[in-house]
Amino acid sequence: MTSAIVLGGSRGIGKAISNALKSIEIDVFAASKKDIDTSNMESIKKFLENYNQIDVLILNTGGPVPKQFFDITEDDWKLYHNQLFLGFCTILQNIKINDGGYIFLISSNVIKEPNPKLIISSAYRAAFNEVFKILSKDYAQKNISCINIAPGPINTDRTKELIENVKEYEKSLPMKRLGEPEEIGNFVKSIIENEIKYLSGVTINFDGANSNYIF
Amino acid sequence: MTSAIVLGGSRGIGKAISNALKSIEIDVFAASKKDIDTSNMESIKKFLENYNQIDVLILNTGGPVPKQFFDITEDDWKLYHNQLFLGFCTILQNIKINDGGYIFLISSNVIKEPNPKLIISSAYRAAFNEVFKILSKDYAQKNISCINIAPGPINTDRTKELIENVKEYEKSLPMKRLGEPEEIGNFVKSIIENEIKYLSGVTINFDGANSNYIF
Amino acid sequence: MTSAIVLGGSRGIGKAISNALKSIEIDVFAASKKDIDTSNMESIKKFLENYNQIDVLILNTGGPVPKQFFDITEDDWKLYHNQLFLGFCTILQNIKINDGGYIFLISSNVIKEPNPKLIISSAYRAAFNEVFKILSKDYAQKNISCINIAPGPINTDRTKELIENVKEYEKSLPMKRLGEPEEIGNFVKSIIENEIKYLSGVTINFDGANSNYIF
Amino acid sequence: MTSAIVLGGSRGIGKAISNALKSIEIDVFAASKKDIDTSNMESIKKFLENYNQIDVLILNTGGPVPKQFFDITEDDWKLYHNQLFLGFCTILQNIKINDGGYIFLISSNVIKEPNPKLIISSAYRAAFNEVFKILSKDYAQKNISCINIAPGPINTDRTKELIENVKEYEKSLPMKRLGEPEEIGNFVKSIIENEIKYLSGVTINFDGANSNYIF
Repeated sequence: MTSAIVLGGSRGIGKAISNALKSIEIDVFAASKKDIDTSNMESIKKFLENYNQIDVLILNTGGPVPKQFFDITEDDWKLYHNQLFLGFCTILQNIKINDGGYIFLISSNVIKEPNPKLIISSAYRAAFNEVFKILSKDYAQKNISCINIAPGPINTDRTKELIENVKEYEKSLPMKRLGEPEEIGNFVKSIIENEIKYLSGVTINFDGANSNYIF
Repeated sequence: MTSAIVLGGSRGIGKAISNALKSIEIDVFAASKKDIDTSNMESIKKFLENYNQIDVLILNTGGPVPKQFFDITEDDWKLYHNQLFLGFCTILQNIKINDGGYIFLISSNVIKEPNPKLIISSAYRAAFNEVFKILSKDYAQKNISCINIAPGPINTDRTKELIENVKEYEKSLPMKRLGEPEEIGNFVKSIIENEIKYLSGVTINFDGANSNYIF
Repeated sequence: MTSAIVLGGSRGIGKAISNALKSIEIDVFAASKKDIDTSNMESIKKFLENYNQIDVLILNTGGPVPKQFFDITEDDWKLYHNQLFLGFCTILQNIKINDGGYIFLISSNVIKEPNPKLIISSAYRAAFNEVFKILSKDYAQKNISCINIAPGPINTDRTKELIENVKEYEKSLPMKRLGEPEEIGNFVKSIIENEIKYLSGVTINFDGANSNYIF
Repeated sequence: MTSAIVLGGSRGIGKAISNALKSIEIDVFAASKKDIDTSNMESIKKFLENYNQIDVLILNTGGPVPKQFFDITEDDWKLYHNQLFLGFCTILQNIKINDGGYIFLISSNVIKEPNPKLIISSAYRAAFNEVFKILSKDYAQKNISCINIAPGPINTDRTKELIENVKEYEKSLPMKRLGEPEEIGNFVKSIIENEIKYLSGVTINFDGANSNYIF
């Protein structure tokens, strides 16, 4: 039976992925912040003592509170360096992905079109994407696919916190609505279910035609 | 019942997409070059007289014979301008995609990392991708998703023509193999089957971690 | 003495480049539309009979009248295919750039962030950029540098035609002003003057921090 | 008189920029590692006590020793997080760039085409580039230009350390040679000298046509 760990699996996009994977008989561990706090290196190491091998890994974590550049403290940088970058590196250094497995990274479209309110997120998610791209070539040798999904505006609690007037905002979007977490969940599910392996080393915008950059 | 037209549907990636869509009870017209020659504007216009409305459209066509820049004639440029660009524009100007439908463009990874042997293909496929990106925002208003799949090395007759020693070449690839057309077929199928709509305005590398650009 | 041809050299950015190059004792032919009409293959071929060797070539041409996709005719496509793509290809196929020379392409930031009103320009300029990138590697062997400058909003007649209320528009720009053609002219001049050769195969946004894509 | 600080100004590219700026009568402080160690937050803060206002700032620092991903320790990550990211952020948070000034970032082409041997550098330089892009829009309001130069293979001690056989390597390059630090120095100089301000928020590949990505 295929096994999966979904980080940040108790809410939002992580929860939707967990549910979608469960629907195809995958043995899912939807890890919540209680199980592993990716901003805390001790918590990560402890988690890795118990979970060190898996078929499918979903690297997913919430983003920081919005802060303008000049208000960000050294402690802020270091905290989110852990949460958005170093924690994921440590996990990949210490967990065995089984041959033929999958690693999905849930990042954000801000890595391509950075957002001043989300400057921390833009920076560290971009950093981790570089690592992920490089590793995709190594993992390819074991038939492990590495897929970065870069969501735009998705209907999560997070978005509701960031956007003041969601109804107004939706009208400005090409599809006149936020994306649903379930769309991402089903997308992840369908890739695994159909054993699509050659999709790897790729960053996939998932934003309802909202981004403006050509690729 | 959902209906689909797959251009270039009689071989290679187009055929694999046709087969995959048929497997989920979609009414597929796998158009061959006899049905529509996308390098010939008359052929295109005639085709459009009979086919002017559809749920799912797959824009797919073979590429030109490899030629170095200084050997390309004005006639070559014009022929492939039709085949890779103008034909697709004309189709989109004259076919109605039903609300909630899909348009998939099968392009090539050469639009991101252009190839001197495939300079015509690099140029005109890039051009059409600009059109496709712009239109994705219009189509979004009718809940139509526009997805550009940019394959790398896929196991088709085309690749065998382009690559002298396929076995050797495969060893140089991260996954040590070409991608299978069926992987793309199943990918397209699963997006439609799962009604994933928020994936739109996106270019998806499909190359087994072979490309080097970060995104 | 260094010689230069500046296409579209009688106005706007082309004129500013011509003037800047003249200021450093370069022998400049600022070609106007009377000298060469890049939308007309006969005009191009005739021009090339007289001008077939040069040190510095500036590929520059005006853009099409704004038109929405569904209003563009086959004749429009073909006209601008000539003007923005095929003409430049024909020139490069038939002109000798002297060793150690330079080719500058003046394109547009719409190749990275395409604009629905400028869909023709977005498409064909992107196409030619693919050709230019590929050729940069060939030209490099003769120490010829290929530099694509992709302007954003510049203070030209063209911009005044495209933008209804320029004053209002300027307020929306990061620098609260349009760029000046002379800035591009001086930029081109300074690269040649300082013999900066290793800058090649590059697309340089020139838009006063206006674009949103990370690169 | 215009004043400039060049970080990493005692060798390689930094030294070449310092020399070029001195040649146009700019008052340059070419800071060496003794003056400021950008991997050490205390050193940075002490430096900022003495240098908190400038016209031209060159953010430049050496890269880490090459290490494969699985060999990188938590201390390595943290050290280079300081050196390549946090140090630069701290400097920008605490130094005043005078109106009409310039900030140049000397990064690397690995941010676009990441390199497995330079994974740390790829990651943190990409992260800082996100910050720099975002800030370019703020600085634009004070007519301060932010320019990221992303060098490819340049003839520095660093390159000689990284590349085993430089002579062989040069043959593989489009220009059959490394770039010279002086070319970057002169490029930076000429932008300042010609008061080219509208070039901002841009990443400029400086690699002799070596990169393969279209932009």
